[in-house]
Amino acid sequence: MSLSAAELAALVGGKLEGDGAVRVSGVSGLERATPEHLSFYGNQKYKQQLADTKAAIVFVPDDAPPRGNKTYIHVPNPHLAFARASQAFHPKKVHAPGRSSKASIHADAKVDATATVMDFVTVSAGATVGARAVLYPGVFIGEGASVGADTVLHANVAVLDRCAIGARCLLHASAVIGADGFGFALDMAVPEHVKIPQAGIVRVEDDVEIGACSCVDRATTGETVIGRGSKIDNLVQVGHNSTVGQLSILCAQVGLSGTTELGQGVVLAGQVGVAGHLRIGDLAKVGAQAGVMADVEDNTVVLGSPSMPSRDYMRSVAGFMKLPELMRELRDVKKRLEQLEKESKEKKP
Amino acid sequence: MSLSAAELAALVGGKLEGDGAVRVSGVSGLERATPEHLSFYGNQKYKQQLADTKAAIVFVPDDAPPRGNKTYIHVPNPHLAFARASQAFHPKKVHAPGRSSKASIHADAKVDATATVMDFVTVSAGATVGARAVLYPGVFIGEGASVGADTVLHANVAVLDRCAIGARCLLHASAVIGADGFGFALDMAVPEHVKIPQAGIVRVEDDVEIGACSCVDRATTGETVIGRGSKIDNLVQVGHNSTVGQLSILCAQVGLSGTTELGQGVVLAGQVGVAGHLRIGDLAKVGAQAGVMADVEDNTVVLGSPSMPSRDYMRSVAGFMKLPELMRELRDVKKRLEQLEKESKEKKP
Amino acid sequence: MSLSAAELAALVGGKLEGDGAVRVSGVSGLERATPEHLSFYGNQKYKQQLADTKAAIVFVPDDAPPRGNKTYIHVPNPHLAFARASQAFHPKKVHAPGRSSKASIHADAKVDATATVMDFVTVSAGATVGARAVLYPGVFIGEGASVGADTVLHANVAVLDRCAIGARCLLHASAVIGADGFGFALDMAVPEHVKIPQAGIVRVEDDVEIGACSCVDRATTGETVIGRGSKIDNLVQVGHNSTVGQLSILCAQVGLSGTTELGQGVVLAGQVGVAGHLRIGDLAKVGAQAGVMADVEDNTVVLGSPSMPSRDYMRSVAGFMKLPELMRELRDVKKRLEQLEKESKEKKP
Repeated sequence: MSLSAAELAALVGGKLEGDGAVRVSGVSGLERATPEHLSFYGNQKYKQQLADTKAAIVFVPDDAPPRGNKTYIHVPNPHLAFARASQAFHPKKVHAPGRSSKASIHADAKVDATATVMDFVTVSAGATVGARAVLYPGVFIGEGASVGADTVLHANVAVLDRCAIGARCLLHASAVIGADGFGFALDMAVPEHVKIPQAGIVRVEDDVEIGACSCVDRATTGETVIGRGSKIDNLVQVGHNSTVGQLSILCAQVGLSGTTELGQGVVLAGQVGVAGHLRIGDLAKVGAQAGVMADVEDNTVVLGSPSMPSRDYMRSVAGFMKLPELMRELRDVKKRLEQLEKESKEKKP
Repeated sequence: MSLSAAELAALVGGKLEGDGAVRVSGVSGLERATPEHLSFYGNQKYKQQLADTKAAIVFVPDDAPPRGNKTYIHVPNPHLAFARASQAFHPKKVHAPGRSSKASIHADAKVDATATVMDFVTVSAGATVGARAVLYPGVFIGEGASVGADTVLHANVAVLDRCAIGARCLLHASAVIGADGFGFALDMAVPEHVKIPQAGIVRVEDDVEIGACSCVDRATTGETVIGRGSKIDNLVQVGHNSTVGQLSILCAQVGLSGTTELGQGVVLAGQVGVAGHLRIGDLAKVGAQAGVMADVEDNTVVLGSPSMPSRDYMRSVAGFMKLPELMRELRDVKKRLEQLEKESKEKKP
Repeated sequence: MSLSAAELAALVGGKLEGDGAVRVSGVSGLERATPEHLSFYGNQKYKQQLADTKAAIVFVPDDAPPRGNKTYIHVPNPHLAFARASQAFHPKKVHAPGRSSKASIHADAKVDATATVMDFVTVSAGATVGARAVLYPGVFIGEGASVGADTVLHANVAVLDRCAIGARCLLHASAVIGADGFGFALDMAVPEHVKIPQAGIVRVEDDVEIGACSCVDRATTGETVIGRGSKIDNLVQVGHNSTVGQLSILCAQVGLSGTTELGQGVVLAGQVGVAGHLRIGDLAKVGAQAGVMADVEDNTVVLGSPSMPSRDYMRSVAGFMKLPELMRELRDVKKRLEQLEKESKEKKP
């Protein structure tokens, strides 16, 4: 398969600079690209790589000056154009519909005839699996759970009783949806931690991606919700009764305590932790390893543990790095002050 | 199913205020409760929610003043009463005993006749599975491993060779018990990391809960132990030869290095890390994201990375937040000091 | 099975002190050892344990003074000698070759006749499994993926399409190799996060160990690489297009963002996070919970979040702990300065 620059420009609605007949057969980053590749340039940081790249065609920003030495396609958002073009080169894998004779599908489950159910899959009583859904080996679908159309569940994913996965979702291997929330009440008299039944569910809306070995716990009562179009990386923990708004991004190893409320378009960088019963506002961003201990307002950026507004944090960290110097200076100040005090005393009558 | 206020008061040993005939069919938090619900109030923080709730019945503290406008049940510990009542509304799922013909049970394994072994479960040679234990699809029980009575292992849990799980335990999907501890010795001559055989086991005592995708590594020699009644959340790492005392709580994404010793009733909040060969004393509490680098005494609370007594940490963090101001003040002090020094010099003969 | 001191000395190339005929039947740490055990002493910290141990034979450093009271074997590296001796006591489990009739092996897969394929394993079209490889129940091998000779994949490991695992590797339960890298481009017009196809693979070189529930993501294009002889603990995240050099050590819960480049012999302690597009140099060490936000040079040790050279960090942390005192001192300095300024003013004419 190959595409010409003219075809690619049409595909992404871009403006061609150079030879529209040039053809590429794949995509690559600027640095590793060969003359068979389409690439993209979206960040001034990679200016030199743009100059050096062997890619035959490069997506560049609308306002990039013409360069003349190879074929460019000018677009408002080169990264986005690259994503669309890469999808053209890598169409989704198509699976033959059907049910493996080695799968275990309960007589009371409803599996669409166009779905693909591979070996060693379990679909429990009352569960439903939508059109063209793909269940890889080892997937477990609990009683009354549902999987939407065109959703793909990779090997060993577990969707527990009554949880609902939307359409066009992608769950990576060993993701666990609907394990019990973590709730206990201490009975000192026994003593024992008495389990609070986790009777709610998880609802994953459409177009959500959830990473490998990530866990979304069921609600105590009601629902834990992952909003439409949100993307969750690997090894993420979403506690019971949390709500992740639409189009949010949770990077790897993030942990949300119970009853966390994330707005829309929130971005949590890797290893962020969020304490319980907090709200992180729309379009807020939280930096890597931050520990959020208080509500975060819409459109703000917070960093650090405990998290602070990013500008304050940067200044405090700069201070932290200079603390040894600061301490030396303070010692010096104290000495000089003592000297002056001594002199002052001596001068007194 | 429904229960009356009088029945609920009897169930939890509480004192009724209001109409004992009022009936509820479920439980809920104060905020989302409807007139069908029982709820609880245990924290002054939720005073307003108590005033506003639509719940028909609310558990309140013994010493709460009578309110008169709906049915209350006075108890010493409303949260605990709520847990017990919720269990009454949500009895444990009962599974029909039996072995799926799609499971693989070794001829030399002993599986109690009352246990439930679902599809695609493997029980290896010499393994034992106790009365009424439930093994969900994809569970793997290694050679000589044992699972106690009434224990439930969710989908794709692995209990490796010779590890022992107690009675009434609950292991969530994809938990891994008994993977090798992480131990190597560097041989510079090759060079290679030479594996130290991990020949010990994991012993999980009775009434333990272990979260989804959590890992408890087998000991190098001897045992890694999870004590009776402890509760471990999702994505937790327990290193080889560690000991978790009874009734401890490990929140999500906690990591214990090798040979960590946790006392009884310890609480580790989310994402805490503990360096190796340390002891965390009985009833100690460690705050979220803390990094424990030294022993922690009984009954203490530590915070931060590296962890410090909570009061010291709070003060230091307050200082960290004020560091930019501190630096400004120090600069100002230095200027004024220079001025005085100059004046002092000028005055000298 | 038992070995004499003379046999052990020969095995590890050590120098015998004491009775070469003494026999032991196993290994143990100094503290828990019995007279049936071989142990080792490699760190002055454990001097007292060496004096107290009941072990019959102890590996000690070459230059340790003779002690005379039991049998010692002097070696350059007691820890390494212990690893080798322990391997002699714990030979690797041998598995009968063969394919379970309950496995699912595609007609177009090539599985070596000496490999062991257990129940409920899936080997997809075009995949290859090498000589003496062992696939535990629930393992999934995707299309065109390969598993090298003598490699062991524990229960529920997933190796996705086209990924390549080398020889003599050991992957623990529920490890996921080749889930999609986390890459999206935001299309504000819809709005949606557009998936960037993850068309590359993961290549795991020979002699690598990967922990339970650890995830190594496939590259966007090209390869994510785990270098020869590296050891990765449980619950680790390796982002797409990252490269881990040979003989590196990644402790539990480490997270590497995308396009991280680790040199050879790097050690990342537990819960370390590394931001994307960085290089960590050969033999560099990163302390537990550190957050690496900039390149790390060869042979350096960094600590903290954001990470700093270890010495600087230790000083800054010492300052952090003294911040409350520092603030008090600064307040005191300001008061005294004001006093002097007042006096100075009063003296002026």
